[in-house]
Amino acid sequence: MELTAEQQAAIDAERAATATTRRATVPALEDILYQPLAVLDHGFVRVVDYLGDDRAVVQAARVSYGAGTRRVQDDAGLIGYLMRHRHTTPFEMCEIKYHVKLPIFVARQWIRHRTASVNEISGRYSILDKEYYLPAPEHLAAQSSANRQGRGEALSGAETARVLSLLRDDAERCYADYEEMLNQDRYGTVIDDTRSGLARELARMNLTLATYTQWYWKIDLHNLLHFLSLRADPHAQYEIRAYAEVMMDTVARWVPVTFAAFGEHRMGGLHLSAKALDVVKRLVAGEPVSESASGLGRREWRELMQALGRAP
Amino acid sequence: MELTAEQQAAIDAERAATATTRRATVPALEDILYQPLAVLDHGFVRVVDYLGDDRAVVQAARVSYGAGTRRVQDDAGLIGYLMRHRHTTPFEMCEIKYHVKLPIFVARQWIRHRTASVNEISGRYSILDKEYYLPAPEHLAAQSSANRQGRGEALSGAETARVLSLLRDDAERCYADYEEMLNQDRYGTVIDDTRSGLARELARMNLTLATYTQWYWKIDLHNLLHFLSLRADPHAQYEIRAYAEVMMDTVARWVPVTFAAFGEHRMGGLHLSAKALDVVKRLVAGEPVSESASGLGRREWRELMQALGRAP
Amino acid sequence: MELTAEQQAAIDAERAATATTRRATVPALEDILYQPLAVLDHGFVRVVDYLGDDRAVVQAARVSYGAGTRRVQDDAGLIGYLMRHRHTTPFEMCEIKYHVKLPIFVARQWIRHRTASVNEISGRYSILDKEYYLPAPEHLAAQSSANRQGRGEALSGAETARVLSLLRDDAERCYADYEEMLNQDRYGTVIDDTRSGLARELARMNLTLATYTQWYWKIDLHNLLHFLSLRADPHAQYEIRAYAEVMMDTVARWVPVTFAAFGEHRMGGLHLSAKALDVVKRLVAGEPVSESASGLGRREWRELMQALGRAP
Amino acid sequence: MELTAEQQAAIDAERAATATTRRATVPALEDILYQPLAVLDHGFVRVVDYLGDDRAVVQAARVSYGAGTRRVQDDAGLIGYLMRHRHTTPFEMCEIKYHVKLPIFVARQWIRHRTASVNEISGRYSILDKEYYLPAPEHLAAQSSANRQGRGEALSGAETARVLSLLRDDAERCYADYEEMLNQDRYGTVIDDTRSGLARELARMNLTLATYTQWYWKIDLHNLLHFLSLRADPHAQYEIRAYAEVMMDTVARWVPVTFAAFGEHRMGGLHLSAKALDVVKRLVAGEPVSESASGLGRREWRELMQALGRAP
Repeated sequence: MELTAEQQAAIDAERAATATTRRATVPALEDILYQPLAVLDHGFVRVVDYLGDDRAVVQAARVSYGAGTRRVQDDAGLIGYLMRHRHTTPFEMCEIKYHVKLPIFVARQWIRHRTASVNEISGRYSILDKEYYLPAPEHLAAQSSANRQGRGEALSGAETARVLSLLRDDAERCYADYEEMLNQDRYGTVIDDTRSGLARELARMNLTLATYTQWYWKIDLHNLLHFLSLRADPHAQYEIRAYAEVMMDTVARWVPVTFAAFGEHRMGGLHLSAKALDVVKRLVAGEPVSESASGLGRREWRELMQALGRAP
Repeated sequence: MELTAEQQAAIDAERAATATTRRATVPALEDILYQPLAVLDHGFVRVVDYLGDDRAVVQAARVSYGAGTRRVQDDAGLIGYLMRHRHTTPFEMCEIKYHVKLPIFVARQWIRHRTASVNEISGRYSILDKEYYLPAPEHLAAQSSANRQGRGEALSGAETARVLSLLRDDAERCYADYEEMLNQDRYGTVIDDTRSGLARELARMNLTLATYTQWYWKIDLHNLLHFLSLRADPHAQYEIRAYAEVMMDTVARWVPVTFAAFGEHRMGGLHLSAKALDVVKRLVAGEPVSESASGLGRREWRELMQALGRAP
Repeated sequence: MELTAEQQAAIDAERAATATTRRATVPALEDILYQPLAVLDHGFVRVVDYLGDDRAVVQAARVSYGAGTRRVQDDAGLIGYLMRHRHTTPFEMCEIKYHVKLPIFVARQWIRHRTASVNEISGRYSILDKEYYLPAPEHLAAQSSANRQGRGEALSGAETARVLSLLRDDAERCYADYEEMLNQDRYGTVIDDTRSGLARELARMNLTLATYTQWYWKIDLHNLLHFLSLRADPHAQYEIRAYAEVMMDTVARWVPVTFAAFGEHRMGGLHLSAKALDVVKRLVAGEPVSESASGLGRREWRELMQALGRAP
Repeated sequence: MELTAEQQAAIDAERAATATTRRATVPALEDILYQPLAVLDHGFVRVVDYLGDDRAVVQAARVSYGAGTRRVQDDAGLIGYLMRHRHTTPFEMCEIKYHVKLPIFVARQWIRHRTASVNEISGRYSILDKEYYLPAPEHLAAQSSANRQGRGEALSGAETARVLSLLRDDAERCYADYEEMLNQDRYGTVIDDTRSGLARELARMNLTLATYTQWYWKIDLHNLLHFLSLRADPHAQYEIRAYAEVMMDTVARWVPVTFAAFGEHRMGGLHLSAKALDVVKRLVAGEPVSESASGLGRREWRELMQALGRAP
């Protein structure tokens, strides 16, 4: 991730300007406000604004007139209770806004979450930057044989080199041809005075899905936790997971009590189906249960045994 | 609107506590933060938090790294352009949270706006306060004869007195019977030790729709403006309009540039249908147009003539 | 539940009119289409339209051009997989529309689900029917001592009689005064020619929350299942649960394969928190675990032991 | 647009299978059900299901028990009234589902409408088809000089040929390298047994934004009309407008009365700002108004004069 001097100066100016507020304020999040947190080779996540804190969740749940005199421990108990019993509306009372730079194929997964507000840079309006994602060699892997939509073994060195070469060459050529069709380079300089240049809204279709885009993305805490529970999950594609993991750290700074409850009741837990619950009850009662007698499918059986710490 | 000493102290404590922040801060809104703004006889609206300002709209529209060096005038031009061309997403980048106390029949209209977050006090969990809406005499009106869903002439003095008496008596009796069924008064004191008292979730059904409820309500600026355009409209019921008008003032403090553009392009404008546009074109060209030749229905014709300042 | 002759004739006419369609059609749901299914004392649920079936879920998940030649068993496997792994979007591809008659206090819980479309009868436009909910004696219960928002023991016979009498008298009086303020009875007949009558939008505030209202309510299958998982849950208030249970039967008719997967993976399962999972692992390994050593709160411990079939 | 024999057979089978239903059925839409309607060079729109018709809008607005005996003319009047006064909820009571094949850069504009359900083919799960958008020569245009995000003059013949050649070559090369990285061709045949092949979720990033994708897309009538009002607008990019226009025809078949009201009150009308309304009032009163005295910006003045049929 590299910023231009102008971008860095704009960020520095935002960080330097402070004001006095009566609003709920979270010093640990203020510490990193506006700072780009690097993700992948050219991407970043920046927290650019937030509203509310752990106490705002509690105040909304109680519809209270103020902070009251409750102890921190009571608040943690209430937040745990809300999380455990799926009382989700109080968590909608906090809001956070990110500025994110990410490859287009990641953006296409991300945008499927509809309960957020988004402003993306427009390729109709602007010439897109020449930046594309090139995976680190250790992230290049073969198609998984067990999972139709995942990665398996690492590629051989020769195949890795070949893949990186193809990805780089195609991205470079597509971008160069984008400039040629626009008849402008990435800085807006006209290439050939005798040509008119293709409209930006058309020329952009020549870019590959590895190209980086940017957006402002604003979401409430409940919907953010839902997003993270799906996108920080091991089944998510590595590239979007890399963003989710950096965002998890920002949530831990912002609302530490809620984040702990989220770890306890969502990320760290396990959902048992009706049949799986029956298996567990029998195991707890000391009965042996075999895969064939469990009524579970092969994959569910294997996942349950792993989650219970039993060799399959 | 009366607050208990405890409620007032909680609000005072919130107002007194300040912090330093790097976030966008709006002094004119900070001035009234947490203060209850009276609406109707016992209701209020309090701004309890906000995120963003006019510049946040501009930053999102430009997906910029910082405030940049643009002039205020440029920002106003861009905001007007966005409003005029229905580029609504940048206005979603600001968020505001209210604490509102309102009669249940108003709450039932309000909640139909689904693009907001809500936490309402629970009549399953708490004993509801003894507060009900009693209209001021000048707001009691007969059914409109022209409009199936509006008010017409004022009631006579005798009828007004009778209506107020019925509303008051029924609200008082229903609340007293609510306490009796609960076997608790509004402060939680048990009335009769030999009775067990009906569950709160059932007893509440005896209250009338005039009873006040409360909620935290959080919404983004775009959806708030849409709400206000419908609820501050003369066709809206007076009681919800009273809330919308107080909220308009809070928006004017918060995002004055956006609010001016909203007045210019939404509240103060006029939508012409295809036939109405045709009438206007002919009038502008100096042609006379009669109602029968206009192709408009009676009501649309009358509304158009009024909007154009011509006696119908 | 009683229908007027006119209402029954309208329903009969809808049921008698058939057409030929190329759309996915579900005979078991057609059998009850338009028929009011009774709920509580005066309420009902009617399925008035639907779109899609179990196969539509599968087609969307595969983005296929047609039904293909897959076996029913394959479809059931895919639907189970989607449900288990929270791939929720294919379940959004089915839609159902209900006409529901329900008490206002139930409607206020129900409307908190925002991912549905609603058209409610308007008390500004129409005089509301004289129908109010009066619980059956066996549903009158005291406030729960264990749960701040639930019911406990049944009331005594004397207290039951007193509560029913209060509820009935207050509902009757409030409705009679509603008619008097309107200066019209429920059939629209003017009571006193010398009075003008209060506007409907004001008079309605005198009705109690037990009054029945009606709406058309349309929702997709994913969001309906989420609604049912919360509202058919034992923690939900009995009155809304009564609606949810009748709706469960309509879902079983409509999409039996999805409904079975929902029973297996949602309604019948159990969510373990991180600490609860740890307890289960130790129990399965044959270790004794005490409540104090579990790290669980008292309530979570008790619920876990019950779910595992162990006496607490 | 070409279909494989297998795809065509699946569509034919769907069209041939009919059933009897009690639901609202629209013969004019049944006529084209499942048929792909060609858009651009390889794209299509297919209506694959629908719920409701014009009468369903009316029934929801009236919350009625059946069709009643109202005349068609009354229904048209009510629908016009609802459209004119922005009573939008009854239009949410109809739903339609499309299967769409479209270039990825169009899909990225389209997906910004969040009030719809979507299932897209997954490039993690499947090898994407080798189909990419190549504009017809007459649609290649230079960047507009008047509008930062639009097209202007046509390109010269030489520049057109050059652009088409670049677009084609880059799309072909990127797809060929996609197959090579996968070590599989588009039919799934392994290319080289000694290589393992890159995971699909990574290889896809090499494709350009001109590549076609597909999805099932389901939306209610209100939100569809909003989508069409933005995407069939002359300011929309030609490629998405081409889809919107084909979809307009399907809406005209489905709900002709609503579609006419939409044309009258949305697509064919004009929104006047407060200042523009003032200009119109003065013009109607016979006063001359100059651009400088109007208070309007240059662009708004010009657009107003054009809409009123006056040479600027």
